[in-house]
Amino acid sequence: MPELRKDPIIKRWVIIATERARRPHDFINAKENVESAFCPFDYGNEHTTPPEIMAFRPADTAKDSPGWWVRVVQNKFPALDSNIEPERFGHGMYDVIKGFGTHEVIIETPDHNASMATLSYGQVREVVWAYKERLQTLEKDSRIKYILIFKNHGREAGASLVHSHSQLIATPIVPKRVAEEIAGAAEYYRFRERCVYCDMVNQETLEGTRVVEENSDFVAFEPFAARFPFETWIVPKVHSHNFGEISATQIESFSIILKNTLLRIYKALDNPPYNFMLHTGIRGIDESNHYHWHLEIVPRLTRVAGFEWGSGFYINPMPPEHAAMYLREVSTEEE
Amino acid sequence: MPELRKDPIIKRWVIIATERARRPHDFINAKENVESAFCPFDYGNEHTTPPEIMAFRPADTAKDSPGWWVRVVQNKFPALDSNIEPERFGHGMYDVIKGFGTHEVIIETPDHNASMATLSYGQVREVVWAYKERLQTLEKDSRIKYILIFKNHGREAGASLVHSHSQLIATPIVPKRVAEEIAGAAEYYRFRERCVYCDMVNQETLEGTRVVEENSDFVAFEPFAARFPFETWIVPKVHSHNFGEISATQIESFSIILKNTLLRIYKALDNPPYNFMLHTGIRGIDESNHYHWHLEIVPRLTRVAGFEWGSGFYINPMPPEHAAMYLREVSTEEE
Repeated sequence: MPELRKDPIIKRWVIIATERARRPHDFINAKENVESAFCPFDYGNEHTTPPEIMAFRPADTAKDSPGWWVRVVQNKFPALDSNIEPERFGHGMYDVIKGFGTHEVIIETPDHNASMATLSYGQVREVVWAYKERLQTLEKDSRIKYILIFKNHGREAGASLVHSHSQLIATPIVPKRVAEEIAGAAEYYRFRERCVYCDMVNQETLEGTRVVEENSDFVAFEPFAARFPFETWIVPKVHSHNFGEISATQIESFSIILKNTLLRIYKALDNPPYNFMLHTGIRGIDESNHYHWHLEIVPRLTRVAGFEWGSGFYINPMPPEHAAMYLREVSTEEE
Repeated sequence: MPELRKDPIIKRWVIIATERARRPHDFINAKENVESAFCPFDYGNEHTTPPEIMAFRPADTAKDSPGWWVRVVQNKFPALDSNIEPERFGHGMYDVIKGFGTHEVIIETPDHNASMATLSYGQVREVVWAYKERLQTLEKDSRIKYILIFKNHGREAGASLVHSHSQLIATPIVPKRVAEEIAGAAEYYRFRERCVYCDMVNQETLEGTRVVEENSDFVAFEPFAARFPFETWIVPKVHSHNFGEISATQIESFSIILKNTLLRIYKALDNPPYNFMLHTGIRGIDESNHYHWHLEIVPRLTRVAGFEWGSGFYINPMPPEHAAMYLREVSTEEE
């Protein structure tokens, strides 16, 4: 049974997969694994994944059969288990929670060779609708304290399958990084009585030097204190703490800016590995005044080394103002 | 001029290398770089590094010439500059400090092919003496608020040269990760009136299941909430917040447990890439009751992906109790 364990010093929770027996040898050659020709996310292989949780598919097609355009299934090797109750217990001085949670995969397209940068705007929009639907369904479970939607693109970014997909992990605790954002935003709000993300949107659109793209509802920019080269955030212009409350119009404009930003990165950096993470408040966390949902995109171009791990302090060799300039230069027209 | 910039939400400082002009193309093939046959850390190439800051060498040898057994120089591409004053200024809503600091390289041996796991105990002891000497010298500068000593071993862990070396970065702010440890330890101290690290040493030595090696002064163990497979901490048994206060006897026993732990990892995992980070309080930070210096070793066996970046929450597929068992099984006898 997986366990959540808490670091007693900095209060970071980790998931320990206590039951997956792995020997040291399993780690040694893990990196040489080559993907097989078989893909469980292709049409016709639906029976090789766990059963469909939801799918967008024609009404006349059956569950777990071809025809879908977006499909959500449980992760075959879930990090957490929804059949466990999130009981808390102590182990001497340490704190533990039984490994309750969910771990889902959002298959973004039936096209094995597509990626989010090259999908149509319409298809990206459907994926965003799936995010919204899963978030709104899961946040009704009061045992779930946080829901993270994220994407690993490319082997260097942690993807084990090339077929374009994102993931969702729901946890019985608010993860450290998100709790820090919420606490930091709350502190800023107490000091200024304004949302820090709204202030960033204002300064970024005013200053313009770090902006990559902007439309009526969203702005994509390189954050002033970017950790990584070409790190890019997409932030809604109108204050909203919960992604689940996104409107149909906003989904349209979010899909356009998301696809365009990924396409700019794809073209400028030759389809680099990247991660993106959707940071959102969820129903039941009272941070609606000061928290503000957003998406963080991080191309994986540099290695994180001892200094970064040891200090939480990053060295970024690419000023965000230069990165924004390079990304703005890229055309998002179809070629 | 490099700049330190602060994230206004979670207060993480980053170093932006504003002057190193890099284009997107520079990132694309960066990973294919192959090390040249020339090594600036070999005997005879001393003139190709910045001048020696200190070295352990026979009295009859000249600075920047062969004969040394440990040598410290400035990093050729320093992330921070000791000739800049750490002035603070604002940029709209953002905070900036001019890029003051130092970035040094500790060359651990003249032997091009050695690594800390395979060096003699005596040679490791000399490296530890060099750490102590640099720490004690630099902490006298009141502009320096923190000093991090760390090591990147192997390309996957961020090392750009194979010749065994560690690094030191001194910064005008306390980095986020360290500030969190200090704050967490202070909170624990207020609650229990005991040091959290002392409590961990007690529970770990009592329980034994996560212990890798123990001697009179130190214990090496897998932390209960380990983020990574085979993550190992070395903690002094007697409370001490500042590594700079380490005694000659402790240096002896620290060198033995450090070399042995690295050798166990080297043998169990076939010389994996790893990072280690020395976390210590420094003179002038008043945390002597509750903070406790220690060394964290992190083999780089799994990829950090979107979930970890997005949440600060780690999935560890190797229970620390199993990892400790595997590392205890390894013989540290010379073969």
